[in-house]
Order: sequence, then C-alpha cells, then structure tokens
Amino acid sequence: MDFEEKTINRQTVFDGQIIKVAVDDVELPNGLGQSKRELVFHGGAVATLAVTPEHKIVLVKQYRKAIEGISYEIPAGKLETGESGSKEEAALRELEEETGYTGNLEILYSFYTAIGFCNEKIVLYLATDLQKVENPRPQDDDEVLELLELSYEDCMQMVEKGMIQDAKTIIALQYYGLKMGGHS
Amino acid sequence: MDFEEKTINRQTVFDGQIIKVAVDDVELPNGLGQSKRELVFHGGAVATLAVTPEHKIVLVKQYRKAIEGISYEIPAGKLETGESGSKEEAALRELEEETGYTGNLEILYSFYTAIGFCNEKIVLYLATDLQKVENPRPQDDDEVLELLELSYEDCMQMVEKGMIQDAKTIIALQYYGLKMGGHS
Repeated sequence: MDFEEKTINRQTVFDGQIIKVAVDDVELPNGLGQSKRELVFHGGAVATLAVTPEHKIVLVKQYRKAIEGISYEIPAGKLETGESGSKEEAALRELEEETGYTGNLEILYSFYTAIGFCNEKIVLYLATDLQKVENPRPQDDDEVLELLELSYEDCMQMVEKGMIQDAKTIIALQYYGLKMGGHS
Repeated sequence: MDFEEKTINRQTVFDGQIIKVAVDDVELPNGLGQSKRELVFHGGAVATLAVTPEHKIVLVKQYRKAIEGISYEIPAGKLETGESGSKEEAALRELEEETGYTGNLEILYSFYTAIGFCNEKIVLYLATDLQKVENPRPQDDDEVLELLELSYEDCMQMVEKGMIQDAKTIIALQYYGLKMGGHS
C-alpha cells in the first residue's frame, strides 16, 4: 500500500509573522484521485517542564487570544526565525524570560501539536536544579504572565477540573506522573 | 493584574473548508499598548484511545501532508460542520470508519492542541469492550489507512524512537501508562 500524497500545486494564502497558510492540491496514492489540503506552517517551539527542588511544577498563567481566555501552561516559546542558537538555548531563554529560572535541561519528547493540518513541532524539555537568575531577561513586551508553583497533585486536579486544557502541559504533567513518581 | 486582550479589529485572511485564519489587532491589558495576533480557527476534533480485550492499543498509520511524512496515531477525526449528533457519536463514527471497531466510550480529557495561535480543541475518549462491526462505515475516500494493534510497551518504544510524534497520541499513551497499569 502506498501512502504518499504528491503535491500538484501549492497556493500560499497567508504569509504572516508566525504562520504561513497554504492550500495544496494533492495526488492521492493508489489511484484515489485528487484532493485539497489546507496547511499551516509554523517555525516550531520549545516547552519546559520545570521542577523546583521542592518538587513543585512551574506554571505560567496567561491570556490566549485564540481561545479568548486564561490558560495555565508550562513555560514555552516559539523558535525565532533565523534563531542562531540551539533549541536548548531557546528553551533556557524562554524559561528565564517567563519564570526567572535557569536549570539543567534534558530533552523528553518532540511532538507535532496539530498534525492534521499544521507542522508545528514542540521540543519538550525537563529542567531540574532550578535556580533564580539574578537579573533575568525581561518578558516579551506583549506578554502578561503570572507564575505559579504547584504540586503534581494540584496540577492534575486542574486538569480534572478543565482549568488546564493545554496539550503540551498535559504531556509534561503526565510525564512527571509516569517517570518522576508524582502519582499519588 | 489584568490579562484580557481586547479585539480592536479582526481581518479574516483565509476562510477554508477546515480552517479560518484571521489577524486581530488587540489592545493589551495594563496599558501595554497594542499588538497583533495571527489566529487559526478550527471546528474541533475527537480522538479515541481504543484498547482491545487483549490490552492492545489500536493505532492508525497514515500520511500527513502537513509534515510530508508517515504518522502513527490513535483514531481521530474532525467534527463535521453542523454535525447534528454529539461528540460521542462523532468519536464512535470515526472509530468505526478508521478501525472497524465499536466500543464503550468514556471521556478522558479535552485539550487545545496549539493554544498559542489556534483554537482547535480535541475531546479524547477511552474505548473499551471493543467489537468488530459487521459492515463498518467506509473510510473517507481521501484517506489511506493501515491498522496496528500494539502493546503499551511497543507503543512507548515508538515514542522513544520518534516514530510516534503526535501530541494527542502521546497524551493517550501516557494516560494508559498512568491509569491502566500499562507501565512496566
């Protein structure tokens, strides 16, 4: 069985700062004919499960325009276009900007967030041995953030109640539960 | 501290079959001025962690145009516009179309896949007591799928190797590991 869809034509319909949107005409495999694919291209992002020496998980409270509401998430940020450094550096930069912490990083997973139509890939890190940076880099000037440091059990209660509804944050919390003895 | 970003203007830049894309001019809270938000609107989706009586997890192998590659995922599908039935019915329909199975559903989580710019929300179900449907509804005519039934351990090896890189599938597998005694 063949799976590949060959691009016959790509029409870029939006070319923004964060995303590019295209409609592809594709040739389906196995003689199934043609179809259209609406696609969103994104430069990727990093996210960090940051755990304090007291076994608290660092969350960021913020407003998300896409859902017109408040969201509680692990620290994360887009890779900047043409960013020269590594993804680890980007993760450390975002962690410092959003939380004032730095730490030792270990890569956990890479995953596509919305693979049905979007190529955004998030690299998820674990940060331990957290220390406050003395003069941390400032937050982005269009971000309003509030920090929380919560136990795994409190975080999972927020998942149960629907207060945490962010996929990358659920992946990070469940990792903690599976691998760091967090489940009670 | 105020978090809300007020919409000053919304410009719709693409209105497709699956997604709508807009650029919002927003008034930031706390006198921080204005900014722009690039937003993708999506009608939402359902996904199902389907577990056979032999404790195997049902995965679907398919091509994903957004990443130009093969992906292994739990069964899932978009909510159809104006779909009259419930999300449970949509989940059962997708499960039957993609796998030929039906089962008993239980809701696990709802989550936003790419909350930084997109409102796509996936409702994740657990399906147990799986049974093959005699004359299952056919697959969508533009989908080429192959079924796999794998142990939790085999699935997590695919995650470790980067063969499974789909966020909803990782969430479902971790749930299995945490709650269904899957972690060895």
